[in-house]
Amino acid sequence: MAVPMTRRARNASGIALAVPILKQRFGERCETGAAIRAQHAHTTTWIAGEPADAVVFVESHQDVVDLVEVCRTHRVPIVPFGVGTSLEGHVNAPEGGISADFSRMNQVLAVHDEDLTCTVEPGVTRTQLNAHLRDRGLFFPIDPGANATIGGMCGTRASGTNAVRYGTMRENVVALRAVLANGDTITTASRAKKSSAGYDVTRLLVGSEGTLGLITAVTLKLHGIPEAILSAVCPFPTVEAACRATIATVQSGIPVARIELLDGLQVSAVNAHSKLTLPEVPTLFLEFHGSPAAVAADGEAVAALAADEGGGPFKIATLAEDRSRLWQARHDAYWAALGLRPGCTGISTDVCVPISRLAECVEATREDAQELDLVAPIVGHVGDGNFHTLVLIGDDPAERARAATFIGRLSERAIAMEGTCTGEHGIGQGKMAYLRRELGGTVDVMAAIKATLDPDGIMNPGKIFH
Amino acid sequence: MAVPMTRRARNASGIALAVPILKQRFGERCETGAAIRAQHAHTTTWIAGEPADAVVFVESHQDVVDLVEVCRTHRVPIVPFGVGTSLEGHVNAPEGGISADFSRMNQVLAVHDEDLTCTVEPGVTRTQLNAHLRDRGLFFPIDPGANATIGGMCGTRASGTNAVRYGTMRENVVALRAVLANGDTITTASRAKKSSAGYDVTRLLVGSEGTLGLITAVTLKLHGIPEAILSAVCPFPTVEAACRATIATVQSGIPVARIELLDGLQVSAVNAHSKLTLPEVPTLFLEFHGSPAAVAADGEAVAALAADEGGGPFKIATLAEDRSRLWQARHDAYWAALGLRPGCTGISTDVCVPISRLAECVEATREDAQELDLVAPIVGHVGDGNFHTLVLIGDDPAERARAATFIGRLSERAIAMEGTCTGEHGIGQGKMAYLRRELGGTVDVMAAIKATLDPDGIMNPGKIFH
Repeated sequence: MAVPMTRRARNASGIALAVPILKQRFGERCETGAAIRAQHAHTTTWIAGEPADAVVFVESHQDVVDLVEVCRTHRVPIVPFGVGTSLEGHVNAPEGGISADFSRMNQVLAVHDEDLTCTVEPGVTRTQLNAHLRDRGLFFPIDPGANATIGGMCGTRASGTNAVRYGTMRENVVALRAVLANGDTITTASRAKKSSAGYDVTRLLVGSEGTLGLITAVTLKLHGIPEAILSAVCPFPTVEAACRATIATVQSGIPVARIELLDGLQVSAVNAHSKLTLPEVPTLFLEFHGSPAAVAADGEAVAALAADEGGGPFKIATLAEDRSRLWQARHDAYWAALGLRPGCTGISTDVCVPISRLAECVEATREDAQELDLVAPIVGHVGDGNFHTLVLIGDDPAERARAATFIGRLSERAIAMEGTCTGEHGIGQGKMAYLRRELGGTVDVMAAIKATLDPDGIMNPGKIFH
Repeated sequence: MAVPMTRRARNASGIALAVPILKQRFGERCETGAAIRAQHAHTTTWIAGEPADAVVFVESHQDVVDLVEVCRTHRVPIVPFGVGTSLEGHVNAPEGGISADFSRMNQVLAVHDEDLTCTVEPGVTRTQLNAHLRDRGLFFPIDPGANATIGGMCGTRASGTNAVRYGTMRENVVALRAVLANGDTITTASRAKKSSAGYDVTRLLVGSEGTLGLITAVTLKLHGIPEAILSAVCPFPTVEAACRATIATVQSGIPVARIELLDGLQVSAVNAHSKLTLPEVPTLFLEFHGSPAAVAADGEAVAALAADEGGGPFKIATLAEDRSRLWQARHDAYWAALGLRPGCTGISTDVCVPISRLAECVEATREDAQELDLVAPIVGHVGDGNFHTLVLIGDDPAERARAATFIGRLSERAIAMEGTCTGEHGIGQGKMAYLRRELGGTVDVMAAIKATLDPDGIMNPGKIFH
């Protein structure tokens, strides 16, 4: 995370020139107060905040074009900001520059019901979008937990609980409009559902964390709201048994919409926080989408697979309010876990491994937490082999060091198991150390693309790679 | 297609040096005979063959590394070749060089049943892979019709009849091993089902038509063979009615596995070729995958939606042999269409539009064929808004010119309807004229990436862009 001061120093004179120009162009929408700058560098985790020199609230594509024009002229970094829910320091400005706040670019530009697509500005949040779509019988499935913006979710290639059925942002972004470092505006693809017309620039930008350009419009795939939804919980004797049941479910082709694992510690936290009385053992939360007959049949099939692994009872929540309570509890897992140790800082981290290695990876991670005397409950999107731990730490430097060791070992463990150091949070500043260990020379390809499209390094510098 | 002779001339001295070196390294696996060179430049379409100077049969990753080492040293183009089923001139060598034949790199390297992935060499064909997987209860769904190689299918981002349910190569490639123009070998991703670790280099290579590197291994997603398969055919009064029924099916979330449109002319061709007696009107061929109860319910639901549009009778083929006959007929549509005009050349082309524009686009295309006095039956993967025409032409230059006009107008029409000039065939040499009209400045981004990763232009030059 230590960025040579020379970079910030190199940029200082350009920033000094650019900020007054931006104040003239954007008026009160260009803010330089310490509080607002600090708020835009709040990383939600243990990564120290590194505020930008100014925050510009963009309200239109033309605003973004103008912002880039000023910044490229004076070689000033631009750090995109949605609502600030990222977990790996993406919103920091380690080299100074401008935080571009997209939260006011929050219009749904078009919904094409027949095509199951919509086009939105990047500041639209996922719950705002779903509220907009509900009356049309449509929804956007990607649900990373936080009420993130669509632009931010593009940036980190977000996924979450529904990804096992509906895919991630990788599969659900049709096209992007973006402003590049050279000031050009591009639209990366047509609105066709598929295409073989040249390189997949859409997917190059999805997951690029704002380092290749600023997204100003997103065309997304939508889905019909399922006729019936069935939710269930199922306790298991061990994490391994829960993982084996998950593997059997995925292998059998049952189109489960959500299959989430909470370890015993996390279930305890959820019980306390959400006033539930679940057995405090490894537990799967499940959801099925389809016709009433199909979800009933799918639920029965999974209950049988769970029983084969010693899991059960498989409790179905058919009432909408029971379902909501259950999934609210799952979504509140972060807050519930923080409650295990009042006053602590929670360090959220994630990895993803081939599902055959999942039980082994989760178990080794639990053992490692015990060995390092850390409180670190686990929740996982286990249908994808993806899991999170929230490491709860206090102010003791020795404990922080152990937490760093724990997270480092977790990334190395996932990579050794043919997995990735991040399934959905992104590299940002926090996971840079592991990217090359995971992908070797592929990182040189990424860096070459970055250098070509952003030779002056103004697009969210200091993220993904140094 | 006119490449300045200077490029071929520029390369000539390097080629003259490289071929003897390759003969020494590869022995009889480096062939320079005119027949074999011409066979490797057989474009299956009206694009004239442009043979390479030699064909090298690679048999291992190390062979590819060695080939690239020689070619980059002497600035010699390399044109990858699988089994030669591409449709837009991808296998041509307009600047001379080496055709790298991957057909002998045809080993299935690993199958990971629990993870639903496998890793294969690029010369494995899709039917070979599915034969290998069958006993494990798994299959690889991407089915472009031809028995293409997996490497070639990566190159063109292939899709086909099952894409409406299972996605295209974009969604089904997990990771690639590739040799770049600078000689580096990269592995683009881990074996995890999803990742947020940096730029999506996997999807940058998928669809890059061999212009960024040579693929030497592919990790693919697999699927369980469905418990039950139900096939059906349903005639419609008009193309528009068939398209409306398709839209209703997709909107309702019915997970149809295949939904293929044949226009009346194509049905006539299929009847003649495959000895069927289908009504010679616009017809949907459908397939459903799932449990016996689910496919029966899905079939009934679609039959009702079809009836709403005046379609029917909805005839179900439950017997495996009836199903096979039906889909064999669909797969033989190309040969059937050629039979409409014995001795003709068939020019296969494809576009893809938002599904809401599909009926309009198909109708306008049929009218245009009539206006231009061309025989051009239509088949379409209509669930994705993707359709093909096979223009049947003789030797008359005036007719060829009309065919060129027809294909040009088709691409322009698709682009004007917010679609793409190619849904699954790729740009190659044949669609270059339309890429910039479709994507504007995004083509500059592609070209910048190409120039960075292949500064000497040795990787399949003269494809996608000049």
